Amino acid sequence: MVKLLSEHRGLLEARAGRLITLVGVAALEMPAALKPLLKGVPWYDDARKLAASPDIDVMVELIGGADGIAKQIAETALGAGKALVCANKALIAKHGIALATLAEQKGVALQFEAAVAGGIPILKSMREGLVGNKFSRVYGILNGTCNYILTGMEESGRDFSEVLAEAQKLGYAEADPAADVDGHDAANKLAILTSLAFGTPVSLSSIYVEGIRSVSALDIDFAAQLGYRIKLLAIARMTDHGLEQRVHPCMVDCDKPVAQVMGVLNAVVAEGDFVGQTVFEGPGAGERATASAVVSDLVDVARGHTAPPFSVPVAKLAPLPVASMDRHVGAYYVRLVVRDQPGVLAEVARIFAAEQVSIESVLQRGRAPEQNVPLILTTHECVEAAMMRVRDHLAKLPAVVEKPAFIRIEEL
Amino acid sequence: MVKLLSEHRGLLEARAGRLITLVGVAALEMPAALKPLLKGVPWYDDARKLAASPDIDVMVELIGGADGIAKQIAETALGAGKALVCANKALIAKHGIALATLAEQKGVALQFEAAVAGGIPILKSMREGLVGNKFSRVYGILNGTCNYILTGMEESGRDFSEVLAEAQKLGYAEADPAADVDGHDAANKLAILTSLAFGTPVSLSSIYVEGIRSVSALDIDFAAQLGYRIKLLAIARMTDHGLEQRVHPCMVDCDKPVAQVMGVLNAVVAEGDFVGQTVFEGPGAGERATASAVVSDLVDVARGHTAPPFSVPVAKLAPLPVASMDRHVGAYYVRLVVRDQPGVLAEVARIFAAEQVSIESVLQRGRAPEQNVPLILTTHECVEAAMMRVRDHLAKLPAVVEKPAFIRIEEL
Repeated sequence: MVKLLSEHRGLLEARAGRLITLVGVAALEMPAALKPLLKGVPWYDDARKLAASPDIDVMVELIGGADGIAKQIAETALGAGKALVCANKALIAKHGIALATLAEQKGVALQFEAAVAGGIPILKSMREGLVGNKFSRVYGILNGTCNYILTGMEESGRDFSEVLAEAQKLGYAEADPAADVDGHDAANKLAILTSLAFGTPVSLSSIYVEGIRSVSALDIDFAAQLGYRIKLLAIARMTDHGLEQRVHPCMVDCDKPVAQVMGVLNAVVAEGDFVGQTVFEGPGAGERATASAVVSDLVDVARGHTAPPFSVPVAKLAPLPVASMDRHVGAYYVRLVVRDQPGVLAEVARIFAAEQVSIESVLQRGRAPEQNVPLILTTHECVEAAMMRVRDHLAKLPAVVEKPAFIRIEEL
Repeated sequence: MVKLLSEHRGLLEARAGRLITLVGVAALEMPAALKPLLKGVPWYDDARKLAASPDIDVMVELIGGADGIAKQIAETALGAGKALVCANKALIAKHGIALATLAEQKGVALQFEAAVAGGIPILKSMREGLVGNKFSRVYGILNGTCNYILTGMEESGRDFSEVLAEAQKLGYAEADPAADVDGHDAANKLAILTSLAFGTPVSLSSIYVEGIRSVSALDIDFAAQLGYRIKLLAIARMTDHGLEQRVHPCMVDCDKPVAQVMGVLNAVVAEGDFVGQTVFEGPGAGERATASAVVSDLVDVARGHTAPPFSVPVAKLAPLPVASMDRHVGAYYVRLVVRDQPGVLAEVARIFAAEQVSIESVLQRGRAPEQNVPLILTTHECVEAAMMRVRDHLAKLPAVVEKPAFIRIEEL
């Protein structure tokens, strides 16, 4: 952000109608590359002091973390009547509504475009560009690390752990990859997106979350044979039972836009009642893409644009019933590893039939009498609770030698 | 738009922070479907009177046409200090700068999101969401009719005229299709997009325009064999010789995002120095998508958002040198219909060599001695002027029995 403000100083002044100037900076240490750019800019050892300084109009928080110093900075700045710009999805997913309330009381802006889908201006698009729409569904690829790993698995045929190790070496995955690969990062972003789209308070705890650790190279291979690609999707959808929010691996038709988003890119699909389907793709992370989003927030503040951060004022956000995953309706991909012996398929089929789950296709690769072989089934639409009972019964069959693997097939 | 304002009256009030009310309407005749929605709304026989009425804050112009009544309405409204929202690409491409000047003088908003790429909030994204970027290239599919026809030709193997006739029957093409299929509609939109992206006055006359009438079913078939798909692209790009603006059929790699946009959809790709590449897809036309865009402009006005319509104030728009098409550098696809006789390929190759245009591949389908057969060549990158000389020489060869067809291969 410091680089962008410096490189495009004149351009931004022309576009924003006023000069955007750094008047203070606080950090644990000064990155060497920024030293020349920050020459003469007052240094604060305590970021909270900077947030309360009478010299500033806007505080930009780029520390991260839902609590601790990031939260204190946010509260201090807004409390002192400064606008707040941040890139902190964890903070906004957990405390966004409280911060928005404070911002409203003080009549200042709260902006967090970089918190969701990096450089893609998706929050502005939902809140402003598509403001005339009631949304029925919003979904996307919100975690570049997972998409990079899934793409790598598909391209190389290797398993999750190998590709993760490579991603870590290249800097696309953290040393502790849990937040990314277990789906929590995507869930934070989905919680924010859902609030904006459906006019409801952010509710991280309502999200069903499942990561990509159990996706195997075999699954990716079978997906391709079935005309699908596996993506970690974050989905918010209004159903007859209430609002469904979920993050999990999905099999999606190869020719759908999100299926074609590869590598570290992100994508969001918004479905509105007037516009129909719109798709937004771009870099979901990285220093420069984040700077692009943060500076767009700064220019909004400079231009005096102040749409409510969650599309409507906090008092107008309405809690919505939460649709439980038990009642989720969809098709499933099931991978069993079974002993190749007579009668296994009949036993398996009987379990599906007993729960009224209708099988759509069966794939078995090769034959290997008395060896272990994968047995792949896909189902027609059924209720998740029935499918979970099928899973439990299948796991108990003597011929099923590994824990059954399930991936939801998503109708997009 | 009338439907949207009525259906989402409460939602829009919550989002915009104020009620948006229709206080007058003017049209040649009242559509029957709107009668109940417009009950009690004052009717004006002369739209200019409505534009000057003291009762209104914003005038919405949805008539179309670069001049005539649309222009009069726009000038009247802005002149009277009202904000203007319009969906009129021809008006903005021709008179946008003059209207923006008037809007600045009067301190009112001028908004035209629906004029480019229909429901996709691309102007807002360029002007606000990606405001921190210097753009190097912006391109896309800006005409849904052409994309529908090209998609139909690919899917059915039929020729342009047949698919056009079908599109006309289905309402996807006008009775007079010239504005669409000859590329002028896309050029109007590109002119607006270029101005916003590059901070330069709108300049429709600088655009090289070529439509899709000469694309044949054969070309579409050969494109697929070469790993390409044919799209009518509108492209603005900064080159060493200046700003290049062009609309013409392109061969694009099948796996690029714009290659996968089928049917009446539109798509825009923006390349910024900080964000990298972002892609926006969605419906480019239609009553409901247009309403979505028009209402987003209305809500901007209601919220008091007033970014300069062309990203910077008119006085800061800077004319840029125009890169002539003669100096365009790119690869080409060439389709000849030749007499199948010995020595033809040698003669053809000699002409390319004489102009230093290097051939990348040659495709000839079947053999038919002394009959006419297609001969397809693709080139490496070369200068357009050299390629045009190659074309002229090829056309004069006795063995070349039809006018040579050329399609530019676009590196995306």
